[in-house]
Amino acid sequence: MSLIVIGTLAYDDIETAHAARKGVLGGSATYCAVAASHFTKPRLVGVVGNDFQESDVKKLQASGVDTEGLEVADGKTFRWGGRYEEDWNTRHTTFTDLNVLEHFAPKVPAGQRDSKFVFLANAAPAVQLQALEQVEHPTFVMADTMNLWIDIAREDLTNLLRRVDAIVLNDEEARMLTGESNLIRAAGQVLGMGPKLVVLKKGEHGAFLMGSDVHFSLPAYPVENVVDPTGAGDSFAGGFMGYLTAQNSIDPAHLRKAMLHGTVTASFCVEDFGIGPLAERNADELAARYDDLLGIVTV
Amino acid sequence: MSLIVIGTLAYDDIETAHAARKGVLGGSATYCAVAASHFTKPRLVGVVGNDFQESDVKKLQASGVDTEGLEVADGKTFRWGGRYEEDWNTRHTTFTDLNVLEHFAPKVPAGQRDSKFVFLANAAPAVQLQALEQVEHPTFVMADTMNLWIDIAREDLTNLLRRVDAIVLNDEEARMLTGESNLIRAAGQVLGMGPKLVVLKKGEHGAFLMGSDVHFSLPAYPVENVVDPTGAGDSFAGGFMGYLTAQNSIDPAHLRKAMLHGTVTASFCVEDFGIGPLAERNADELAARYDDLLGIVTV
Repeated sequence: MSLIVIGTLAYDDIETAHAARKGVLGGSATYCAVAASHFTKPRLVGVVGNDFQESDVKKLQASGVDTEGLEVADGKTFRWGGRYEEDWNTRHTTFTDLNVLEHFAPKVPAGQRDSKFVFLANAAPAVQLQALEQVEHPTFVMADTMNLWIDIAREDLTNLLRRVDAIVLNDEEARMLTGESNLIRAAGQVLGMGPKLVVLKKGEHGAFLMGSDVHFSLPAYPVENVVDPTGAGDSFAGGFMGYLTAQNSIDPAHLRKAMLHGTVTASFCVEDFGIGPLAERNADELAARYDDLLGIVTV
Repeated sequence: MSLIVIGTLAYDDIETAHAARKGVLGGSATYCAVAASHFTKPRLVGVVGNDFQESDVKKLQASGVDTEGLEVADGKTFRWGGRYEEDWNTRHTTFTDLNVLEHFAPKVPAGQRDSKFVFLANAAPAVQLQALEQVEHPTFVMADTMNLWIDIAREDLTNLLRRVDAIVLNDEEARMLTGESNLIRAAGQVLGMGPKLVVLKKGEHGAFLMGSDVHFSLPAYPVENVVDPTGAGDSFAGGFMGYLTAQNSIDPAHLRKAMLHGTVTASFCVEDFGIGPLAERNADELAARYDDLLGIVTV
């Protein structure tokens, strides 16, 4: 089966309470695709500028990412800056230079329109819809979003929600979208907006999955040394979607296991800046951590 | 097997963002004992004033609590006032009238010194130690504490930690006790202080259990309508200790199940003010919720 990941690639400047890095290869689609590459050969669709390093393309390819849908536009790659507070839970955006992203119109290569599993990484909902329309007969479409779009593009987002099978939200976004502070009730309301499944992420407190015939809750993997949480949510989505694609299934038993795989990829992601740990861990390391997590949650 | 619960009984004045109640029967030992009464006949040791309602003694007895160790002292029952913010996570103590608690010296009845399972509910660590010394050959001792004692009675608390098998802490207390913000590392440090087991509670985000041969993490039960969180932690401890007592076991498989039972009793506790829901739910209702929770966490 085929997974297509459509979203952003970026160079990030990141500051934590302990360290800082500039020009780190990032972006929602990057993290998702590299995480998914442990399970399938994901098709990455996004735009970069002509300052994008050839070595970074090679890195993605070496991880098993199909970069045919990587468009190089005239201009600079999207750049984002973020700073984390000591507690990791508070993130400040220090700058956003959209650059080539400003006029991004995703183009799914002709040979990838048959993709069956689709992840629409965070982008303007109108852009996500535009991308989705290019996929012919998807089996399972999951979208991500952010508070900005809930705020300024709610109508587009409402349209998107009617077209996707699943939406991934963090706690803040779920509350903002529904006006409901209780996360279980918020997830229930989101299900009423269209998607059959909601994945609700709670950062260090884990995530839960809710649908009409499935309710599954999972703690985060207990990472002892968080270095940089950037990309954790997208890495989660990558492990989740990658596993489902490899299984070619969205039945509840596989959805539950997909939550564990997503938690594992997210846990590797936060152990260093950038995609390093996601790209470098091998199948044995993933399997060992999966077993460890399974041991922690098995009654 | 026998469980003894030593701690406070109180009349609480509680304000939430939605309602307020005065003179609610509460206290750490009360909540714990009533929760435990679903599994065993807990022995309750504590002090009340002569204003304590006979009907409240009858309520405890009707729930299956052994009240032989309930001492009635001259004066008024301990009174506590608390106010919760809309988000439930922030609690303000509005007043504390120690009353008869000021000179409380717990007295374990002669016939209860053979208790095998012991829960030392939150109290000054010196008082907890004094209580513990009256139990002859306990099998498993768990203690609770609070930020106040970490702050003003750290030496006594350190002594207590060397004498108990398990300690239950919330996230804030664990960070305060160890100076470590990462909860996994904090739990590891607490294990170095003496106890073989740490139960770390994270409120709406669940709890985890850590020991040398067990690490188990569990989300909270998704309660849709929280009315009053007072007593949730003690109700958790009651379900946890009550189940272990009934099984007469502290092996890892039973400890994991005890975490679920504690989560279930805590989830009933928060559905109304006081001990009402804890006292009124029957075995079928507990079992149904246990199965529901098991379904939510089973991979």
